[in-house]
Amino acid sequence: MIRSTGAPRAPATPYALPYGVFSDSGEPPRVGVALDDGVLDLAALADDGHLNPRDDIWRAPSLNAFMALGRAAWREAREELTALVDETPRGELSRYTRSQRTVRMHLPITVADYVDFYSSEAHATNAGRIFRPNADPLTPNWKHLPVGYHGRAGTVIVSGTDVRRPLGQRRGDRGAEPSFGPTARLDIEAEVGFVVGTPSMLGAAVRVDDFAEHVFGVVLLNDWSARDIQGWESAPLGPFLGKSFATSISAWVLPLDALDAAWVAPPVQDPRPAPYLRGTAARGLDLAIEVRLNGTPVSHPPFREMYWTPAQQLAHLTVNGASLRTGDLYGSGTVSGWQDDQRGSLLELSWNGASPITLSDGSTRTYLEDGDTVSITATAPASGGTRIALGEVVGTVTAARRA
Amino acid sequence: MIRSTGAPRAPATPYALPYGVFSDSGEPPRVGVALDDGVLDLAALADDGHLNPRDDIWRAPSLNAFMALGRAAWREAREELTALVDETPRGELSRYTRSQRTVRMHLPITVADYVDFYSSEAHATNAGRIFRPNADPLTPNWKHLPVGYHGRAGTVIVSGTDVRRPLGQRRGDRGAEPSFGPTARLDIEAEVGFVVGTPSMLGAAVRVDDFAEHVFGVVLLNDWSARDIQGWESAPLGPFLGKSFATSISAWVLPLDALDAAWVAPPVQDPRPAPYLRGTAARGLDLAIEVRLNGTPVSHPPFREMYWTPAQQLAHLTVNGASLRTGDLYGSGTVSGWQDDQRGSLLELSWNGASPITLSDGSTRTYLEDGDTVSITATAPASGGTRIALGEVVGTVTAARRA
Repeated sequence: MIRSTGAPRAPATPYALPYGVFSDSGEPPRVGVALDDGVLDLAALADDGHLNPRDDIWRAPSLNAFMALGRAAWREAREELTALVDETPRGELSRYTRSQRTVRMHLPITVADYVDFYSSEAHATNAGRIFRPNADPLTPNWKHLPVGYHGRAGTVIVSGTDVRRPLGQRRGDRGAEPSFGPTARLDIEAEVGFVVGTPSMLGAAVRVDDFAEHVFGVVLLNDWSARDIQGWESAPLGPFLGKSFATSISAWVLPLDALDAAWVAPPVQDPRPAPYLRGTAARGLDLAIEVRLNGTPVSHPPFREMYWTPAQQLAHLTVNGASLRTGDLYGSGTVSGWQDDQRGSLLELSWNGASPITLSDGSTRTYLEDGDTVSITATAPASGGTRIALGEVVGTVTAARRA
Repeated sequence: MIRSTGAPRAPATPYALPYGVFSDSGEPPRVGVALDDGVLDLAALADDGHLNPRDDIWRAPSLNAFMALGRAAWREAREELTALVDETPRGELSRYTRSQRTVRMHLPITVADYVDFYSSEAHATNAGRIFRPNADPLTPNWKHLPVGYHGRAGTVIVSGTDVRRPLGQRRGDRGAEPSFGPTARLDIEAEVGFVVGTPSMLGAAVRVDDFAEHVFGVVLLNDWSARDIQGWESAPLGPFLGKSFATSISAWVLPLDALDAAWVAPPVQDPRPAPYLRGTAARGLDLAIEVRLNGTPVSHPPFREMYWTPAQQLAHLTVNGASLRTGDLYGSGTVSGWQDDQRGSLLELSWNGASPITLSDGSTRTYLEDGDTVSITATAPASGGTRIALGEVVGTVTAARRA
C-alpha cells in the first residue's frame, strides 16, 4: 500500500481508487482508476477476465452507466478493485496501466442538473458583510435551510480546461449606464461537489439517511465567478451569467466509500433544523482543502466547518418532490473557515479588492489576471491514520475574446 | 388544407406540422408529426420510402437527434413533409396515422439546460409591486438585460403529467419560526419555451441574428410555482425549490419555420440595448395565448408585448461564452399584458390572493386547489390569413404527499 502525504496531483493510494474517464493516442474515452501515478484501464482488465465487465460499462465515455447501477454495484466493484490491487504484483498490473502524464482526462460524468449551495457560515457572513453592509450578513432563511440555486450543467468542464475570461454587463458608476466588457472581478470559489448515482422518483423526497444510497462520490469543484457581472444581474432572480461561463471539476471522482474515516460531527445547528433535515447521516466531512494561485498556497479552507452537511443538502434539494437523475451534481458552496487564511474566494481573501494578497513571486492579486492558474486540492483521513487525496481541480485563465 | 380557428387540443394544419414523440400499445416511443387529429408515424413513412430516414432519427425516443442535424436538415424535412401531406390523399396517409386520442405522448426533447427569463414588463412590474411595494417595481438592470436564471432540467415534464403539490418551508408569521408543509400558494406561469437544436462552442457568443440557426422550435410552457416556498428561500440567490418541482411543456414542438408569418416589431426598447442585444432578428412573436382553469378562460396573455425578444434572450444567455447544447430549453418568463385579463399568473390575477377570480362553476380561486386543471393554448398567424395552433400544455394538481 502506498500512502499519500501532502497533496499529489492525482490520488494514488489503494484506499482512494477514484474513477475517471481517460483516453490515450486516439482511443475512445473509457473508465479508469487512478493508482499511484498511473491509470488502470478497467476495460482492458475486464477483457482479460480480471474484473466483472458489467455490461461493458468500463468502455463507456462517462461514469454514468456505472453510477446508475446503484450502491451495491459500487461497493462490489470497489471490493474487486481493492482485492485486485492488493493481490496483484505491480509488475503484472503494469500492462493494464497508463501513465497519468500521457493520458488525456475527460469530464468524468455526464452532468444532469447542477445545483450550487451556499452552506459555509463564514463565507455567507463575509459575502453578506461585503455586499449588504447595512443589513444582517445572513438572510433570515439561512439557518433554516441550505440556500441553493441551479447552475448551468452544460458548462461544467474537466480540470485542466482553460477558462476564458467572460464578457458581460457591469453596473455603471453612480447612476451611469451599465458598461459592457471583460469582467474585471474574475474570482474562484473552492467547493466540494457531490455526484448522484441513484435516481429518485418525481414527487418523492430523499431522506437525510438515504444519502449514501444516492450519492456515488465526491469531486473538487471551482465555481468560477465574475463578481461584477453577478452583482449587476442578480436582482431579483439570483446569479446567472456571472457563474454560467464555467464550473471546473476534478477529473477523478472519489467514491463515497473511500471516505468512511472522514465523517465528523458538523457544527452545532441552532435553531434546530426542521425534521426533514435531521438524521444520523447529517454529518460533516473532514476534508482539508488547499487553494493555490500560480503555485502559492493562498488558503486552506476546512470543509468540516460547513454549516449544512451534504446529506442535508440532498434532502433539501428533493423535499419538494424534485427528482434526482444519475449525473446530478451539487456543489457545497464556497468553503471558507473563520480565519483569514481559510477563505475560499478572492472576494473574501482580498475583501472585494480592498486588501490585495501577495504571491510568492512578489506580485499581488485582488481578482484573477489573464494567465493565472488556480489549483484546488484536498486530503481526507483514511483508515490506519493515513490520508487520501482527492483529485486536483486546476484551471488557467485566458484572455477574453474580442467584444 | 385544414384551417384551425379557436384553440384545438393539438395543432392540426399542414402549415403547423409540429413534432412530438409518441408510443402506442407497447411500442417504443418514436417521432411523430401532428396532422388533423392524428399522428403521422415518421419511422413507418421512412421505412416505406416516403421520407428520408436520416440515420433512423425518426425511431429515436426524443427529437434531439433530429434537432442536432441543424437548420438545413430541419427545413428539408419540413419541405418533404409538407409536400407529402399536400400531395398524398388522406386515405393513403391513414395507414401511417395513429389517433391522437389513443397514443401516449412523451417528453419530446431530452432537456439539456433549462433557463427561465423574466421578460414581460407587465409581469415584472406586477410582481415588483406585489413583492417589493416600497421599491421601484423594476430592478435597475431590468431594461438593460433580459433577467434570467437556471431552473431544473430534470423536472421538465410533458403536458398531461399530473403535478403533485410540493412541500416546503414557508416564512413564519411576524418573527415566528418558518413552517413546513404543502404550499398554500401554488401558481402557474404561462410562458413560451424555445428549444435549441444547434449547439455552440464554449467561449463563443451567439449573435442576435444567428437565432434561427440555433433555435429549432417553440413549445408552450407552464412554470408551476409555489409562491410561499419561493418567497422564503429566494434571498439572496433566487428561486430554487419554489420552481424546481415541475415545469410542464407541450408535447408538440412547433418548428420555427412554421412561424414565418408571426414575427412582429417588439415594444420600443428605451434605453437602447447594448450592441450585443441588437439585430434584425430581435423581433417579437405574435402569439395569442389563452389560459384556462378548469375550463374557464381566465387570461389571454399577448406574447407580442414581451419586452425582450427570444433572439435577445439567446444572445444574452451566451454573451459570457456559455455554450449551448442540443436540447437546451429557455422560457420567456411569464407572459402578461397590461390589462387585468391578460395576466399570466394567479399571483397577478388574484393580486397575491387579495382579489379572487371566479370560475364558470361559480367557485372562486386565489391560488390552485387540488384537482384543478390548468391548460395553456396559443395560436399564431400563418400564411394566407389563417392561424395555426401551438400544442396545448395541460396539467392537473394532485394532493401533496404526506409529510
